[in-house]
Order: sequence, then structure tokens, then C-alpha cells
Amino acid sequence: MNTGPARGMRDFLPEDLRRRQYVMAVIAEVYQQYGFEPLETPAVENIETLLGKYGDEGDRLIFRILKRGEAAETGQADLALRYDLTVPLARVVAEYRARLPKFFKRYQMQPVWRADRPQKGRFREFYQCDVDAIGSTSMVVEAELLGAAGDVLQRLGFSGYMLRLNHRQVLSGLLDAGGVPVGQHGDALIALDKLDKIGRDGVARELADRGISADGAARLLETFAPSGADAASTEAAAWNAQTLARVTTLLDGRAAEGVAQLTSILSLVAAAPVGAHVRLDPSLARGLSYYTGAIFEISVPDLAGSLGGGGRYDGLIGMFLGEAVPAAGISLGLERILVVMAERGMFPAHIGADAADVMVTIWNADGIADALALAAELRASGLRVEVYPEPDKLGKQFRYAASRSIPCVTVVGDDERTQGWVSVKHLPTASQQGHPRAEVAQAIRTLTARTHHG
Amino acid sequence: MNTGPARGMRDFLPEDLRRRQYVMAVIAEVYQQYGFEPLETPAVENIETLLGKYGDEGDRLIFRILKRGEAAETGQADLALRYDLTVPLARVVAEYRARLPKFFKRYQMQPVWRADRPQKGRFREFYQCDVDAIGSTSMVVEAELLGAAGDVLQRLGFSGYMLRLNHRQVLSGLLDAGGVPVGQHGDALIALDKLDKIGRDGVARELADRGISADGAARLLETFAPSGADAASTEAAAWNAQTLARVTTLLDGRAAEGVAQLTSILSLVAAAPVGAHVRLDPSLARGLSYYTGAIFEISVPDLAGSLGGGGRYDGLIGMFLGEAVPAAGISLGLERILVVMAERGMFPAHIGADAADVMVTIWNADGIADALALAAELRASGLRVEVYPEPDKLGKQFRYAASRSIPCVTVVGDDERTQGWVSVKHLPTASQQGHPRAEVAQAIRTLTARTHHG
Repeated sequence: MNTGPARGMRDFLPEDLRRRQYVMAVIAEVYQQYGFEPLETPAVENIETLLGKYGDEGDRLIFRILKRGEAAETGQADLALRYDLTVPLARVVAEYRARLPKFFKRYQMQPVWRADRPQKGRFREFYQCDVDAIGSTSMVVEAELLGAAGDVLQRLGFSGYMLRLNHRQVLSGLLDAGGVPVGQHGDALIALDKLDKIGRDGVARELADRGISADGAARLLETFAPSGADAASTEAAAWNAQTLARVTTLLDGRAAEGVAQLTSILSLVAAAPVGAHVRLDPSLARGLSYYTGAIFEISVPDLAGSLGGGGRYDGLIGMFLGEAVPAAGISLGLERILVVMAERGMFPAHIGADAADVMVTIWNADGIADALALAAELRASGLRVEVYPEPDKLGKQFRYAASRSIPCVTVVGDDERTQGWVSVKHLPTASQQGHPRAEVAQAIRTLTARTHHG
Repeated sequence: MNTGPARGMRDFLPEDLRRRQYVMAVIAEVYQQYGFEPLETPAVENIETLLGKYGDEGDRLIFRILKRGEAAETGQADLALRYDLTVPLARVVAEYRARLPKFFKRYQMQPVWRADRPQKGRFREFYQCDVDAIGSTSMVVEAELLGAAGDVLQRLGFSGYMLRLNHRQVLSGLLDAGGVPVGQHGDALIALDKLDKIGRDGVARELADRGISADGAARLLETFAPSGADAASTEAAAWNAQTLARVTTLLDGRAAEGVAQLTSILSLVAAAPVGAHVRLDPSLARGLSYYTGAIFEISVPDLAGSLGGGGRYDGLIGMFLGEAVPAAGISLGLERILVVMAERGMFPAHIGADAADVMVTIWNADGIADALALAAELRASGLRVEVYPEPDKLGKQFRYAASRSIPCVTVVGDDERTQGWVSVKHLPTASQQGHPRAEVAQAIRTLTARTHHG
């Protein structure tokens, strides 16, 4: 009998899960500080809600649920597992429009399921973590989204992170200015995206293969990968001012609204802490079809790929309403963030490891009721308390506590019980001291604070 | 196009979800205080992991997932949605046994899916909330489970709750003593369970119909529903002592181990706060087949049915290991608890309603960058801050904040901006006052504390 999880799925054992919960709690707390509200939708949707929304490839990757009862014999599916958090959001906006606030700002952290071929770091069940603001075309929305994403990264302990910023119209305008016909914008971006891999000459050759003139290709390369520029080592305000000026010149009057919106976003974030992390990047693409305005991507030093991204997509949320609904959002790559934080040892020392602050040992059968009473007292003071469930050799109980990373154990021998004293052993330092019963909780709190921060 | 959730499933909009999250956070906090660790398993299991574990009726209610790719044409299912949290726990114990602590104590709060006919209060996707302690036969386990469940109810604001306690062997022994053949134990319990509905005479008739002697029926009724006894109005220790004595006499030497275990559990909980809420109830059944030792059920005044229950089930967790593994647990009826708390107005006033502590208004386009800077300052002090996204009439912005139950709004006119002052309006009292910018956060904190607690 196979007792592993299903292919591409994961069990989260306590240590791992506590780390995940820590990160999700930080994200939720920051989003709440920005006035975003939590939303949850069912794992299971009517199949017609999902089909046709993710392209042919997406349709193939949707997990379909068999009809029940007699209809099961037909092999037909009427339900399907949630594939992303955007289509359910669009459904919710259509269904509850009258009850939702005019500016509906929600965050949602739930698993989605995709029948992809599992591989390293790619799973068939994984969490998405989306934040979206619906109902306003104001650039305040973009500025607040960037602010919230920056605060999340900051609070998780990332440094040197960049929130790369571009605009779909600006991107199109630059491709126009480089002489790329509209029908070839996608091809050109694919070629330009290979710069790191195949170099400037390689990209120029690919562009030529696609019928783009040598002059256009040179302009494109200079636009998307200007020689000598290094975003990371230039202060944000100066970088953004230079880049905005350069882009405006290149555009030569094209995409004026896009330029105005980028200018507005940059001025709005300037006064907030995130301002120092926002970098204009005219080469940022994130796919042309989906977004209608600003686009973002989060990068951190020494990491290929991004930790999340998003933008404005005014056409998508209204899919069930049959009208355009202004919307912008950011999706954090929660699974990626967890991998990077684990690799870089970024979790606070006590997150994940310890199942309790203290373990109450059982001296002998006569002492069990008193041990439980002591545990109740310690819990009433807010401590997390494990009770060893059986009388056993004390050394064995100590080793058990150590194996579970519980920093303190209490010992109450027969004499101590009579006298109202409790011995507390701090396992990391192997020090032991007796305390009057009323002072034990405080002593343990002092010892565990030392364990966590020292 | 149907934009509702699938049949029997629910969308959780923010107000509702915040209440759910509040209750789940209280439960998680209490369980952690008892040394229980969080576990999560995938929503999707291999179908053979689930089939045959829940009886024929259960097998019919399992949501089955179609094979992907070319196999999809066959209509075959290879995966299925989680049906409960016990089978996945048994699978986890088998799969990771070497990595798990000797006494593995876990809590798990995740949705399960059942293709039941939806009806009032019964859904096809609902959360289960299980806490289980694995690996010890000590009655410390039962005492700790009762303590944790009691603390959860206490912290959620329930009063007068009872943790009814019985033992499977005692129950069987009492039925034996009443002259019920082993093969009819189940029938007799079904008849006795109807006492509230059909009265003593009705139950006596039903027992007679099933071939139980009049003398046996009278003894059973006196055993399971003693005349004149009222658990709720008798102090716990006295009630339990009387009941234990009465049951011991009736058993006449039967089920000695069960009586000893109940005696032990009662003595262990006596010193803890939960002791006043634990009531021996020899009529408590909870199905004979599943449990092997103590059984519990949670009841609150004026509510038919229970808010949860559990017991010791030493045969189940080892199903994938092929050996008995000691285990006991309690499952809280999370959905039921939420319904009862809503009906009885038990949620703290601020839980659910307010999306933010304060809303920053936008005076005019020139003031937007400063409004975002103010929002960043207030967030840095820990407040939850909504920003109205567009310049608009102030009255309209105030009404928007009120409609979202946000208690405070800030106003910074052109003069105030120059002078570094901020006006704070407290909407519930319609009072408004100016503050130097550095003192605004503290002023809002004072006002919102008043909103939440006054």
C-alpha cells in the first residue's frame, strides 16, 4: 500500500507548516494594514466556470470531478478543482456586486490544482497568494499595491529587493518605435527576453530572422538593455528620472497616457518607504495579452526569476458581467518565497522548530494530577506547555524534550511538591534552578526569550 | 451564466471569513498551548487511499477525480477529494513514522468534501477541526484533550458547557447488565437514544419489541436515564462521584478496566479548570464500533446535538501499518460552533465588521502623495489603514468609510498640510479633532479602542 501523498502533492509536517503559516501570517497582516480584506472561495467550481478561461493548455490541466450517482457511469465531469484565484474572484464580483464595497480590495491565499507534470519546485497542489483592488482607475491603487508588496518583503527580511515597474502601453510604444509591426510584438519580446542567455548579437540575429531591420534591432537593444546602465547600483529616484526621460525621448509622443501613469505612480511611491525599491524597467514584459496598464515584477538579488508580479488588467474581472471593471493586483509567489527563505536561512530561529515552550515531566504516578495542574497554571500565563504523558525515567523525558526542541522542562519531585517548589531545567544551557511555584511561569518566559533571541 | 458557487459550496466574503478566522485562530492557539502541532495534508488523495474506509455509503459520497490525458476518455477516476481528516492522519503516521515524535500530537483544520444532498447547515465542502494524540495509552491523553476542548469553549465565550464522558467498555457492560445480548447492543442504544422524543414508556415498548425483557428494560432505563438526576444543577465532583458509584454497582464487576480509566480521568481533570465541566454520562454512546476506550461529547445549554466529540480509538490509526496504534482525539464541530456563535451574538464586536482602523481621505489631487505618506506613517505604527483611492467630495468619502464600518477618517486640508496637522473624525460619535502629525496614530488608537470595547 502506497502511503505517500498523491503524485505532485505534499504533506506539510509541523515544522514545515509552521514556517508556511508564519509567512502567510506576515502577508495577511501587511495586506490588512493596507485595507485589503480576506476572501475564500470553494476548492470546487462548476466546470463551465473554469473551462475556456485558461486557453487550451489550461483546459487540459484542469482536474475534473466525475458526476455522482447513476451519471457516474457516463464518465462525465460536472465540477472541477480551482485552477487560479482570478476566475473565482471575477465570479464573486459578478455574484455579490451589490453587497461588495465600491472599491473591493481583497487578498486570497488558497491552494490551486494543476495537472502539470510534477518537477523540482513545481507541484500539482500549490498555494497562490493574490491581492487585488477592484473598482478604481486611480494610480493610488498601483502605489498601494507596490507599497504592500514592499512591506511584505521588508517584514520577511529581504533586502535589496526591487519592484520593477513598466506599463503595457509604454512597452508597445517602444516596440513600435523600434519598427516592430504590432503582429510581431510578441515574437520580438521573446527574442529580447533571451538577452541573458544568448547575448546582444544572438538577440540581434533572432530579431533579423523575424524580419526586423538591423537599425530597428539596434534601437530595440539600446531601449531594452541600455549599455552601461545598472539599476541595482543607482539610487532609485535618479534611476527612475533618467529612465523616464530616456523612454519619453524614444517614444517620441507615443503612449502618452502610459508615461503619465508611470510618472504619477513614481511620484506617489516616492514619499513611502517602498519608493527606494521601485525601479522603472522598460524591458519588463510579463506577457502582452493580459495587462492593460502598469505592470510589476518583484526581484531579489542573486535570484533568477521573480518572487511575484502583477499589474492593471481592466478587462478580466468583468468577464462574467460582460463589462470592463477596473482592477489591478499582485500575485506573490508564495512557494518560491518559502524556498528562497529556507535556502537563505531567513526564518526567525524559533519559527518551525519548537512545539512548546516547556515540557512538564511526570515524576511518578502519584505526581500526575499535580503535573497537569502545573501545566494548567503555566498555560493560563500564556505559555505553550507539553506534558510528557507517562511516568518514565527522567533522563528519557529530558531527551524527548530535547528531540522536539522544547527549551525548558519542569521537574517536581515528591519533596518539591510538598514544599510548593518547581525545578526548571533549560536544556540548551543545561542549567537548572528551583523556583517557588508562583514564579515558574515568569522564569520560563525569561529563559525562552533568551533561547529565541540570543 | 451561473455565477454562484457550486451546489452545496460556499463563498466566504470578508465579514464572514474574519469571524471564521477568529474562531480558528482561538482553536489553534489553545491547541498549541497544549503542545499539539499543526498538520496539513493535500485536498486530493489517491483514490485507493480512501475507498473502503468509510463504508458503502461513504464510498458513494466521495468526490472522484477523472484521470487526465488519454485515459480521460475511459471515465476512470484515480484520485479523490479528502473525505475526513482521520484517514489522511493514519496515512501520515504510516509514511513518516520514523520522523514523527514518539507521542505525535497534531491538530488539523482543513476542508473535506462529501457529495451529500445539501440542506440547511449541511454542505458539500466544510471544515473539520481534529485534534489527536497518538502513541500513548496513558489517561493523561484523555485529560489533556478534555482540558484543551474546555479551554477552547471558555475562550470563545461559552458558559455552562459540559464535556460528557463515558467509556465504551462501561457502556457495553451496562447493556450486558441490562440483559441485552451483545448482538443487540446497537438496537438497544438506538431505542434509548429516543428518550427525549418518545418518553420512557415509548423506549420501554421499543426495547420489548426487540425482545428485551421488561425487567431488563426497566434496569436499562434506570441506568441510562435515572429518575430525579439533573447533571446541570449538580456540582461536577459530587455528580461524578455519585454516578461512578451507581455505575460500579450496576456493573457488578463488569468492565473493571473501563471504570478504572474513568476514575483516573476524573481525578486528573479535577485540579484543572476543565474539571468543573466534565460530567460522567453513562448513556453517552457515539456509536459502538469506532471507539475502544473513553468517549466524549461537548454540549452547551439550550442546544440540541453537540459541538463536537471524540474518544480513544486504538484500532484506527494503524490501518496502513497493520498494527494497533494507541490514539485518542476530539473533533470540534467548527461549522456548528460558528452558527451557534452567530445566532447568540458571541463574536467580539469588532471581529468581522471593520476592514480598517482608519481611512485616509483624499482632499484634492495635489494632496494624494501626502495622503499616501500619512498612510505609511500610520501603518508603521501598526494601524490598519485604508486610503480612499480618488479625490472626491468629502461627505461621500465619509459615507464610504461608515459603510465599511471604519471608525476613523483623517482629513488634511491644504492649510493643515502646510502646518503639519491632521484632523481625525470619529464616525460613531461624529466628533472631530485636530492633532499634530506625530500624535495622530496615538489619537486613532485611543479612538478605536473605545469603539471596540465601549
